Amino acid sequence: MQAITTFTQLLDAFKAMPVKKRVALVSPDDSHTLDVLRRCLEEKLAVFHVVTDNKTGEEFSAIAQKWAGDITVHHCDSVDDAARKGVELVRTGQADVLMKGTINTDNLLRAVLDKENGILTHGNVMTHATLVEVPSYDKLILFSDAAVIPRPNLEQFTNMVHYDINICRTLGISQPKVALIHFTEKINEKFPHTIDYRTLREKASEGAFGDAIVDGPMDVKTACDAHSAAIKGIASPVCGNADILIFPNLEAGNTFYKTVSFFCHAKMAGIICGTQAPVVVPSRADSTESKFYSLALACLCQTK
Amino acid sequence: MQAITTFTQLLDAFKAMPVKKRVALVSPDDSHTLDVLRRCLEEKLAVFHVVTDNKTGEEFSAIAQKWAGDITVHHCDSVDDAARKGVELVRTGQADVLMKGTINTDNLLRAVLDKENGILTHGNVMTHATLVEVPSYDKLILFSDAAVIPRPNLEQFTNMVHYDINICRTLGISQPKVALIHFTEKINEKFPHTIDYRTLREKASEGAFGDAIVDGPMDVKTACDAHSAAIKGIASPVCGNADILIFPNLEAGNTFYKTVSFFCHAKMAGIICGTQAPVVVPSRADSTESKFYSLALACLCQTK
Repeated sequence: MQAITTFTQLLDAFKAMPVKKRVALVSPDDSHTLDVLRRCLEEKLAVFHVVTDNKTGEEFSAIAQKWAGDITVHHCDSVDDAARKGVELVRTGQADVLMKGTINTDNLLRAVLDKENGILTHGNVMTHATLVEVPSYDKLILFSDAAVIPRPNLEQFTNMVHYDINICRTLGISQPKVALIHFTEKINEKFPHTIDYRTLREKASEGAFGDAIVDGPMDVKTACDAHSAAIKGIASPVCGNADILIFPNLEAGNTFYKTVSFFCHAKMAGIICGTQAPVVVPSRADSTESKFYSLALACLCQTK
Repeated sequence: MQAITTFTQLLDAFKAMPVKKRVALVSPDDSHTLDVLRRCLEEKLAVFHVVTDNKTGEEFSAIAQKWAGDITVHHCDSVDDAARKGVELVRTGQADVLMKGTINTDNLLRAVLDKENGILTHGNVMTHATLVEVPSYDKLILFSDAAVIPRPNLEQFTNMVHYDINICRTLGISQPKVALIHFTEKINEKFPHTIDYRTLREKASEGAFGDAIVDGPMDVKTACDAHSAAIKGIASPVCGNADILIFPNLEAGNTFYKTVSFFCHAKMAGIICGTQAPVVVPSRADSTESKFYSLALACLCQTK
């Protein structure tokens, strides 16, 4: 398989999937989410379980009527019920992917994380991965975590690396290159993340992540710009060529997300990993395009 | 005074300064720093004390000979001696600005911070401010801290805000708008920086920072993109219009720095604040242009 290096190729792969995925879509009450729903139906890319909290309006009714064969509608009385229903559809194997519309992310994640009826696999760590296409880089970048874990510990970092490498493999990258991001290049006990980074490097060299290269700490520029790395005298196959950026905390991950989104007009897609099925939790300010890319990524990554 | 909104205007202001600043330049052994030196001399923008650690070569000798009237050369036997000499020139009032060439930043800052012979003003907090011109924003952005303080406490945050507001005033911005950056918009005890942010907002509303607006927590996109803020329903004169971004930690500040630098091809200038004179500590990977802008900013901000 040729590696996917642009969102255009990602969509091509989504469209070429032999079996349509079944998406549980909770509360599609905003125009962006309805646009995504309509596009998927028009292009026959997925089938839907739509869970409404009785706020959906005429626009949704028209869609539901037109594509009645590809939409099953479930009515709920509250957003919390809607969240639980969406999660149940995944847990009982009726849906392959979970996506939210206007419902609050917190509401949905509460249902996802519910000990009895949630969809967090036993022992798994839930974290967020964002795929970004930014001009001035010749391939896609996948990074974690811009949304879920404020201060990752070693176990959480290890899971992030695992999930992100798996996503890269799904995208056809045979040997993903993982940059562990920090402001320093030195392992330093004053900055505990760098100690975790050393352990991750050791695990990688012992083969824990399969065919992948893990290096760091290094900064974002060193990870993505070969010229900067050369000036600094850092030689690593990761430098200037990273596929994956692991951020030391949510403040840094979120800053990267918002900066490339606004200042670089990057194309972005995000999914939650570590659950029984990929979960798409777009932020309110995300564009239709970004929501569509996220759903495409989720469907491609649902490999059961 | 018309506010400076581009680096071209910043250079115009630098060139228009009525009195040439005296720059202590330590170890200009690399071509980028020598280019900055040559340009300042050719355009008669500053006069120099150059402190060498006996590694400077023929290129510097030629410059020193050509502009002998505008350069005083001080020979030192080691980089540590050179650092101490540079600091001494500032402390004794012979230089207005301190800048490093190839000497390690750590070496220079050790001399700057020396209790007996350093130039840290009593009680002052040393922090770093970066000015950035990024396409897709219609003015300059000043931000802290991408280089010095890993985990700012309230006192350090307060100083950052003070320094950055002062720099903005120097640039002609009468009412600087300060965004306190975080991944959340809520004050939350789980994230202690947000508690400090609340205090900073209170101080601002009591007039501690003069005519300025301080708001947050908010993310980078909300601070710089009015459209995102509107979608999120956040109404603040800071949203979409920030002059200053205060980052919660060095990982986030450094991520912003490296991301706009590499992915947005931003123009950048950086100085250290809180010392008796502005200190310029370019990173090895900085361009000639960036080093030149930094020196211009330092000279403009030296207002004694």
